[in-house]
Amino acid sequence: MGIVCGSVLAGSDAGPRPPFVTMWGHDPDEAGRLAQARRSPLLPQARLPAPVRGARAHAEARAAAPLVSAIPVQYCRQAWQRLARFVPPAVPVLSVAKGIEVRTLLRPTQVILEALADHRPGPVGVLSGPTIAAELARCLPATMVSASADETLRLCAQRLFGTRWLRVYAHDDVPGVELAGATKNVIAIAAGILDGLQAGYNAKSALLARGLAEITRLGVAMGARSDTFFGLAGVGDLATSCFSPEGRNRSLGEALGRGEALGDYLARTPHVVEGVETTRSVVDLAARHAVETPIAQAVHAVLFDALDPLDAISRLMSRPPRDEAPR
Amino acid sequence: MGIVCGSVLAGSDAGPRPPFVTMWGHDPDEAGRLAQARRSPLLPQARLPAPVRGARAHAEARAAAPLVSAIPVQYCRQAWQRLARFVPPAVPVLSVAKGIEVRTLLRPTQVILEALADHRPGPVGVLSGPTIAAELARCLPATMVSASADETLRLCAQRLFGTRWLRVYAHDDVPGVELAGATKNVIAIAAGILDGLQAGYNAKSALLARGLAEITRLGVAMGARSDTFFGLAGVGDLATSCFSPEGRNRSLGEALGRGEALGDYLARTPHVVEGVETTRSVVDLAARHAVETPIAQAVHAVLFDALDPLDAISRLMSRPPRDEAPR
Repeated sequence: MGIVCGSVLAGSDAGPRPPFVTMWGHDPDEAGRLAQARRSPLLPQARLPAPVRGARAHAEARAAAPLVSAIPVQYCRQAWQRLARFVPPAVPVLSVAKGIEVRTLLRPTQVILEALADHRPGPVGVLSGPTIAAELARCLPATMVSASADETLRLCAQRLFGTRWLRVYAHDDVPGVELAGATKNVIAIAAGILDGLQAGYNAKSALLARGLAEITRLGVAMGARSDTFFGLAGVGDLATSCFSPEGRNRSLGEALGRGEALGDYLARTPHVVEGVETTRSVVDLAARHAVETPIAQAVHAVLFDALDPLDAISRLMSRPPRDEAPR
Repeated sequence: MGIVCGSVLAGSDAGPRPPFVTMWGHDPDEAGRLAQARRSPLLPQARLPAPVRGARAHAEARAAAPLVSAIPVQYCRQAWQRLARFVPPAVPVLSVAKGIEVRTLLRPTQVILEALADHRPGPVGVLSGPTIAAELARCLPATMVSASADETLRLCAQRLFGTRWLRVYAHDDVPGVELAGATKNVIAIAAGILDGLQAGYNAKSALLARGLAEITRLGVAMGARSDTFFGLAGVGDLATSCFSPEGRNRSLGEALGRGEALGDYLARTPHVVEGVETTRSVVDLAARHAVETPIAQAVHAVLFDALDPLDAISRLMSRPPRDEAPR
């Protein structure tokens, strides 16, 4: 997602752009290769335009403002702790990570603020929505939300990332946007399991609806607004994650549904599958907030307790008949 | 959908079933062929089990109780007017149609009640949800909602249609379930247009989210509950209609997106595509209730004013940037 963000920022066709974009990577060698080749094997469809340059040392990361954080949440704290002393005070930070830190159960922007706490952090924001990177790299039409409690930052991001093919909506519910983006990955794993079992569109659409209800319940219990879950960053992102063949979490689930072991899949994929650790976080958060999350429980049991995927689906389908939305 | 309902009612594996199911068709010859062949060319995956028999005359339709109405809404009034004198008083009727009568802007159950008005009609209910017939015919796992203001009827339908692979949720918002089922077809046509233009999953998921917001606004203005639109009969059905390759409305949209003319497509499909007439109804209802429905307007312009599908999408994408959910 970092590569796509760099490309959009530097290569857009809409209005004034920043003069250059600096990309920093945790591995200096990899960053150097990316700067030379202008392509990453992780996203071969994308070609970095000329105004994107690679930073080879921590200190060079300071040039960019705002900073865009595309670090998977489980690595976010240590990366920002390393970078903190190079970050000028009050610089705004936009996060595109979709997960929840397992140890602390914090959202990405909360983790970033903690890591920068001794360095006078600026406002934080989130970019989210149905944004499969491989499609953005091909400039296919898409939408995003830019969420921040800071109006200047969310409008700035709306302006910076908006192009002819990428429509950016401003939003002010940061907890909602981040929680929706994290929790939908758990439902997407379940959707992939259904694909692996060849259960069909009716089943997957039912899962989407029941999963949306489940993650909304949890989000609302944690202070998010329900309408955020019914918007682009919620149901929109959930839909693309459940149906796009390129979704990382869906693809993992499909492998599990076909009988592959979690460890084998994670060993062969080049990507970080954020939903795996997020499933642990979601089950912990549900317990803490006393929210019923049968789908997340089932995914957790498949991932970590070797429950057979078919048994997990049967268990969900055979709960006693009931009203859909008891008031 | 009538064939699937007959099969589920007669062939289920869950608990006591009715001793027989009578199917009535508007064309006696066609009904006779179906009764003999036990299959319809419209749904070759389904085979009617033995307890399903075909009615050859109007009078034979009276045997069944409750009655299940699987008549497309634009033909519903005249069919029920023909049948009315054969319907015993107070017999409950369950509708599975997903549309809005163009001339009156009424929902299917309202049309049925009007047609039966002189014959002491019983309670009415609706069966809806993400239920692509071809998958139901293969007994793939699915969910449905059974909605009625009459508690006995909705629980009866929940019991009759619930099987090991079909989970039925009871619901009490009949207007919401019917309006969601009708209006999602308009969004599904738009989704198909995106498919025809090969716009990708991000775009279609954004359409799903914005479309859901649009049909929810209209439904709420007409007295439906918003949570109905966020459940199985709303977003669940919307998802399967937008993503399943078998969806009739999506398939029509895809043909339009590829450049086929509406008339040509309708001439070659053997199915009734309810979304076409419903698009007229939705645009009329939106005007009557002063609700903004940009997606339905765009679909209407493509269907009836020969707007180029690509121009329709560009028009939707180039609206001025804004907040996602202004409160």
